[in-house]
Amino acid sequence: MRSLSVVSIESPAGLSTHGCGAGDEPLLLRACRGEHVERVPVWFMRQAGRSLPEYRDVRKRADLFEICRTPELAAEVTLQPVRRLDVDAAILFSDITLPLAAAGIDLKIVAGVGPVIAEPIRSAADLRRLRPFDPDRDAPYVAETVRIAVAELDRPLIGFAGGPFTLASYLIEGGPSKTHARTRQMMYGEPLLWRRLLDALADIAIASLRSQITAGAQAVQIFDSWVGVLDPDSYRDFVLPSARRIFNGIADLGVPRIHFGVGTGELLPLLAAAGADVVGVDWRVPLERARARLGAEIALQGNLDPALCLAPWEVLAERVTAVLDRGGNTGHIFNLGHGVPPETSPDALRRIVEHVREHGASRQATADAEWDALGV
Amino acid sequence: MRSLSVVSIESPAGLSTHGCGAGDEPLLLRACRGEHVERVPVWFMRQAGRSLPEYRDVRKRADLFEICRTPELAAEVTLQPVRRLDVDAAILFSDITLPLAAAGIDLKIVAGVGPVIAEPIRSAADLRRLRPFDPDRDAPYVAETVRIAVAELDRPLIGFAGGPFTLASYLIEGGPSKTHARTRQMMYGEPLLWRRLLDALADIAIASLRSQITAGAQAVQIFDSWVGVLDPDSYRDFVLPSARRIFNGIADLGVPRIHFGVGTGELLPLLAAAGADVVGVDWRVPLERARARLGAEIALQGNLDPALCLAPWEVLAERVTAVLDRGGNTGHIFNLGHGVPPETSPDALRRIVEHVREHGASRQATADAEWDALGV
Repeated sequence: MRSLSVVSIESPAGLSTHGCGAGDEPLLLRACRGEHVERVPVWFMRQAGRSLPEYRDVRKRADLFEICRTPELAAEVTLQPVRRLDVDAAILFSDITLPLAAAGIDLKIVAGVGPVIAEPIRSAADLRRLRPFDPDRDAPYVAETVRIAVAELDRPLIGFAGGPFTLASYLIEGGPSKTHARTRQMMYGEPLLWRRLLDALADIAIASLRSQITAGAQAVQIFDSWVGVLDPDSYRDFVLPSARRIFNGIADLGVPRIHFGVGTGELLPLLAAAGADVVGVDWRVPLERARARLGAEIALQGNLDPALCLAPWEVLAERVTAVLDRGGNTGHIFNLGHGVPPETSPDALRRIVEHVREHGASRQATADAEWDALGV
Repeated sequence: MRSLSVVSIESPAGLSTHGCGAGDEPLLLRACRGEHVERVPVWFMRQAGRSLPEYRDVRKRADLFEICRTPELAAEVTLQPVRRLDVDAAILFSDITLPLAAAGIDLKIVAGVGPVIAEPIRSAADLRRLRPFDPDRDAPYVAETVRIAVAELDRPLIGFAGGPFTLASYLIEGGPSKTHARTRQMMYGEPLLWRRLLDALADIAIASLRSQITAGAQAVQIFDSWVGVLDPDSYRDFVLPSARRIFNGIADLGVPRIHFGVGTGELLPLLAAAGADVVGVDWRVPLERARARLGAEIALQGNLDPALCLAPWEVLAERVTAVLDRGGNTGHIFNLGHGVPPETSPDALRRIVEHVREHGASRQATADAEWDALGV
């Protein structure tokens, strides 16, 4: 394992200000709040993990949950993409199902499959197996990971939790599902049991996020990755109340809150209504459409098609530019529309970061000049 | 196997006119053309197949491709849902990958997995293994199935073909894929090879559809089921030309053309632009939004969440009504937003059909009365 060391600020385009000098708030946080920024910040979902050789080295000696439960390892893996890619934020290395395992669920991550639950939750009796989650008692290693990483970082660390639909789906199906059929069967057929399950999951998320924020996370993201399987009526009736519970449950801590799910084009206004400051946008939705659906008050995060990470650089560069152009000058955080594909070359990610910096800054300079020319 | 027999027209609500009397065109075809209809027609994607016990009986004695290649069996299975459910159309029982197997690809349907291709297509050399498809020579059983079924039917039979992206994905990935990563890698990285593959697949679809129409199919549907993984720019640049090739290639035959894919909310106008008369709408998109994106000239097909087939009847009935209300009085064909889940009770499907008939007709009567009251 590489030793921990202070992350150096490299400046590929002479522009790498993460905004920690001169009393400024970090760039990412200002962008989350929709403030005028000198350039669009950039980070990647799943930037830590399978696409980095230094992660695969760590992974040879420990499995996913062992890494998550060993603060030195988890912090190391959290910092790896910041070192290598110079992204504008770190994101905690962990897994959305980890708090479930810590709250009494017999859960394994099976390579090539995903989370597998030994005894799925399908009744009120089953629900009793999901204990209340106390981060200090059940998963102290998470906050410790945050503390170690934050001490090493000169830019924000994003904490996260799984969204209620996605975690419920794993618990009910017993693992990943293409159709989420049993999940929706409970949702439509046993709405009271469903609501109890989702509120219990919301409370787990709240406890986990509060602990991460207290330990130093400066922004948080709710990954309700699979909620895009629902139509808007179903989301509003069966998930939004529990999502809102999460956002309300951390509102007093004042950190920007990002809300993301795949395939959620029709749900964007509801993801915002849950209480988000930033909505993560799937690659299927051109950002100007997302903006039209969400209004100017909500910041957007996204949304390059992850598959483009595997495309030739000329194609990739053109599409990065298009995402920047569509995202506009403020209220945009560059990211992929979902996680980094495992086969991605780290060089491609590094070039994306540089391209966002260069293109984002030159475009911003033009916009500022035009603004000045107006004499306002 | 049950013997073939003329399908009886049962009238659960006294309204079961499939429009074959009095020189009328069948209800389904008039609805496809956006004409004023006495009620909204209804059929179900995957209405023939796994959810019907009489299909499972046939399946005990023959596998999927054996059924498809035996006209008497395939016609029987095509007719089963018409007998049991009294839907307004039959759809040919076949599989979108069948013409690929007939055109030289070593392809199996593996239970619980889907189509599995022994040697995926990943290069120009591989592409040579995909021969031109001559339905009369390579798959005469398909047209024969259509002829047998049509002779027994008093309502339209819908023919179909796989869309170019979806078939390309199976061929490139070697089977079903969650991410379609290799597929998009070829699409972005080798656009000329990609275009040759998709045009070859379009030509297979054209040949297959022309043969089905000549044999008696009165409408056709292109299932580009997985194309919703693309953003609109990518669809427009990399798939639309080949989709348009298919629609143009059957335009002279004058049958209504339906275009469907899952998760295509952002692609709806492009699915129409390919040349469709009807666009199938995924359950995620409320029909009034689909209507706003598509305009009044295109008919809509859909879009009940298939998962609702497993919900209690009260919940299901309410959502069927909502789909009808959102679909409006003309230019709407009731269907699910994707295929019937295998666990669905045929009784639930039968009740949906009856509900659509009753609700659709009473709503239409109200609309007609209001229209008359206007004195126009």
